[in-house]
Amino acid sequence: MTSAPLPNPADVDFLGLTVDGDGLVSFELTDPLSRLDGMLYGGTGLTASVVAMEAATGRGALWATTQFVATAGVGNRIDCRAEVLAEGRRVSQVRVTATADGAVLFVAVGSTASERPSGYTGQFGEMPAVEPPDGSPEYTWRLPTDLPSEPVGFLLSSEFRHAITVGGDGSYAPFLSWARMRGRPMTRAMLGFVADMVPSGVARAAGRAGGGRSLDNSIRFGAEPDTDWVLVELEPHFAHEGFGHGLARLWSPDGRLLAVATQSASLLLFD
Amino acid sequence: MTSAPLPNPADVDFLGLTVDGDGLVSFELTDPLSRLDGMLYGGTGLTASVVAMEAATGRGALWATTQFVATAGVGNRIDCRAEVLAEGRRVSQVRVTATADGAVLFVAVGSTASERPSGYTGQFGEMPAVEPPDGSPEYTWRLPTDLPSEPVGFLLSSEFRHAITVGGDGSYAPFLSWARMRGRPMTRAMLGFVADMVPSGVARAAGRAGGGRSLDNSIRFGAEPDTDWVLVELEPHFAHEGFGHGLARLWSPDGRLLAVATQSASLLLFD
Repeated sequence: MTSAPLPNPADVDFLGLTVDGDGLVSFELTDPLSRLDGMLYGGTGLTASVVAMEAATGRGALWATTQFVATAGVGNRIDCRAEVLAEGRRVSQVRVTATADGAVLFVAVGSTASERPSGYTGQFGEMPAVEPPDGSPEYTWRLPTDLPSEPVGFLLSSEFRHAITVGGDGSYAPFLSWARMRGRPMTRAMLGFVADMVPSGVARAAGRAGGGRSLDNSIRFGAEPDTDWVLVELEPHFAHEGFGHGLARLWSPDGRLLAVATQSASLLLFD
Repeated sequence: MTSAPLPNPADVDFLGLTVDGDGLVSFELTDPLSRLDGMLYGGTGLTASVVAMEAATGRGALWATTQFVATAGVGNRIDCRAEVLAEGRRVSQVRVTATADGAVLFVAVGSTASERPSGYTGQFGEMPAVEPPDGSPEYTWRLPTDLPSEPVGFLLSSEFRHAITVGGDGSYAPFLSWARMRGRPMTRAMLGFVADMVPSGVARAAGRAGGGRSLDNSIRFGAEPDTDWVLVELEPHFAHEGFGHGLARLWSPDGRLLAVATQSASLLLFD
């Protein structure tokens, strides 16, 4: 799936990973890898799961689902242990268990694969026509309390802007935003970091402010990104008895669908 | 999420499950739970994972992802062991490991939840307008070889019909089909059984016959079904180097979105 060495050095640098040869990657939970309240950010769990799978198999990630079991705060050391459950000629099946102080924090399942350029490649559907990220306005987070004036948490490491529909009245498209990592090119694993917006999309579709506490972050990958900005297109699906479910398409600015993320969350609605 | 006792007796009967009190459910792989070639059907793995999670927690399933590691044939006994990784006031986090003859066959992660009728419920998007299943034609599977004239495998336990768009020219809607279990009402776990159609949808979107070998079957649930037929709406997303990804919405005939399934597969394309 990718020609870069694995784990991708850009991901190792971003997470501050220690990689041993035995299926263990570990990192310290820092502020840029945390939620705005200093606890583990869901996107970090998915990114670390993907990197652990790629490190254990030397193959690029095809899909991953990360389930959140507990939480941790800034300063905790997180150990991600990968088990390769099956290793085929082209595809590996991997399970990851992440612990902090010996307690399970998150678990993941997913597949990685060797490159096969002759395999069928195609996409169904087109990227919405939006104005480019340069000049688009900073994303407005609708939260119960004011954000600090300086970035904190994952906003130290990633940046979001509203996307504006081409030919519209100039207002923000409600389910579209641009995202990039600050000072880093995008990688497959980092797509999982910026995709963690589905709960806020479900809240918005419900006509409410808020978001949710993620039960999982899941993602399915296409081509390795070769861009910094990606367009995040949210597709909220439904909510039942306070649990919301939906999808995010991640587009390269030139219109290629790089990944599709899905997520379930316990909704936190505020108005 | 449901008022029925858990595990749901309808699911126990369908799979022929033995349930012990200690997080283990087991069943024999029979022809109606198999693919047309007599090997484990992906939908069976997802259904069994959901039932194992519900049995271990006494709570209804919210979402589940089942990853396929190996395969088994008719006559194999499959043991599904659930670990409850966390049990909160309302939500449980569960991991399942299924083995046959001691070897890992599939693994799953997912959540279950207690009922909370006061929680926000809503859906975004509407069911396509199609003719009812009664009178709709039997589904035509596009496979490399002719199907046997009598049902085999999962077609012994489930039935599929083409769906016809209301107000169209009477031709089959390419990504819509009706599905039901034969002689059984639908349950949440069985939605996972009939949702295993995404790879064939990706093949169809690519203009090819065929399907794929599932890497995973994932599903996110809303209300407990109270119907027999469900409309399966496929939304193929993309394929990269021979791996395809997409989604299936599962609608109650009265237009309620019951579940959304997603899936990745190694594509098998035939023409």
